[in-house]
Amino acid sequence: MEIEIVSDVLEYNKEHAEVNRQLFKDNKILVINILSSPGSGKTSLIIQTIKRLTDFNIGVIEGDISSTYDAQKIKSYIDNVVQINTGGTCHLNASMIEKAINKIDIKNLDIIFIENVGNLICPVGFDLGEDYKVLLSSVSEGDDKPVKYPKGFIKSGVVILNKIDLFPISDFNYDFFEKKIRELNSESPIIKLSCKTGEGLNTWIEWITKKVKK
Amino acid sequence: MEIEIVSDVLEYNKEHAEVNRQLFKDNKILVINILSSPGSGKTSLIIQTIKRLTDFNIGVIEGDISSTYDAQKIKSYIDNVVQINTGGTCHLNASMIEKAINKIDIKNLDIIFIENVGNLICPVGFDLGEDYKVLLSSVSEGDDKPVKYPKGFIKSGVVILNKIDLFPISDFNYDFFEKKIRELNSESPIIKLSCKTGEGLNTWIEWITKKVKK
Repeated sequence: MEIEIVSDVLEYNKEHAEVNRQLFKDNKILVINILSSPGSGKTSLIIQTIKRLTDFNIGVIEGDISSTYDAQKIKSYIDNVVQINTGGTCHLNASMIEKAINKIDIKNLDIIFIENVGNLICPVGFDLGEDYKVLLSSVSEGDDKPVKYPKGFIKSGVVILNKIDLFPISDFNYDFFEKKIRELNSESPIIKLSCKTGEGLNTWIEWITKKVKK
Repeated sequence: MEIEIVSDVLEYNKEHAEVNRQLFKDNKILVINILSSPGSGKTSLIIQTIKRLTDFNIGVIEGDISSTYDAQKIKSYIDNVVQINTGGTCHLNASMIEKAINKIDIKNLDIIFIENVGNLICPVGFDLGEDYKVLLSSVSEGDDKPVKYPKGFIKSGVVILNKIDLFPISDFNYDFFEKKIRELNSESPIIKLSCKTGEGLNTWIEWITKKVKK
């Protein structure tokens, strides 16, 4: 039995990603797609960033299997928040983003943060039309994540290491972590920070501010 | 165009899972499939368990996207370790396990631990022929994991909360965590422990010891 393949999932996704990318470009919106394991601090990073980027109009697209738990947290800081519940799918895709954008007033936005589903593997292959993927890792996950989940580190425009306030009570070897990232990705900055204490957040804020298009 | 579906992925997986299950049953081996986010401490849990279960013969099947990093760590404690590199696949499946079993001498084994790929979503749907799925969460991931990744909590025979040594410096609300698990799963025990300090490990060891079939 021969089956004609009209289009595959990634091809279909790419078409929608290009539609999103054009829309973001036309409206001069910087779009950041945040990837991490469950519990690395994606929502905390977004909240701490919103609190510091008061000169910009920000929108957030929240991706989760189920619940509106994170979207509700962010809603107390900004209005432009849309929740995508994937139902069971382990990553966001470009057509989910296309639908979500219709629900926010993007005209005046400077930045959109997309919080992907907590998963270091599946979201990496799906272009959403973003300008940058940001891989968020955390001290409590251990220093071996670049060895075990390399693709996300390869594809990210910035790597953030969160929860550095745990350094003193952890056996995390930062030199090893950095070395392993550099074997995969020689260019992207690595930013160490703590969403809890605020340490290092300025470096991240400076990075974003330089990338804003308006 | 109509396409005849001969079999789907989950049906195919189920057949192989039954083959594994029969083999495990015939050899009276207790098989535990450990699921967690990246960095929750699956490898540490296995090592701490091996160190305490000295009366039993143990085998370990290590699942990772790439690397033999975790298998090497475990190899310094026991010989019967097989690494499965999935290449990019976000979960183990039953036919991977079927192949892995051929590489260990299962005749004398009492227990096999399967360390699944670090991912709270995709591994949940794939039966490997195990007796129990164990969902491992950790204090540093936050107390909202049952809300955001419910399926793994529903399907697990035991839920383990690791890194309880971080309670004093964390805002983790254990009552909330337990309440949310109980809304999904009223039966499975929830065991609090720390692979770092050893606290709570006895409860886990007692649970496994009771389940051993020989």
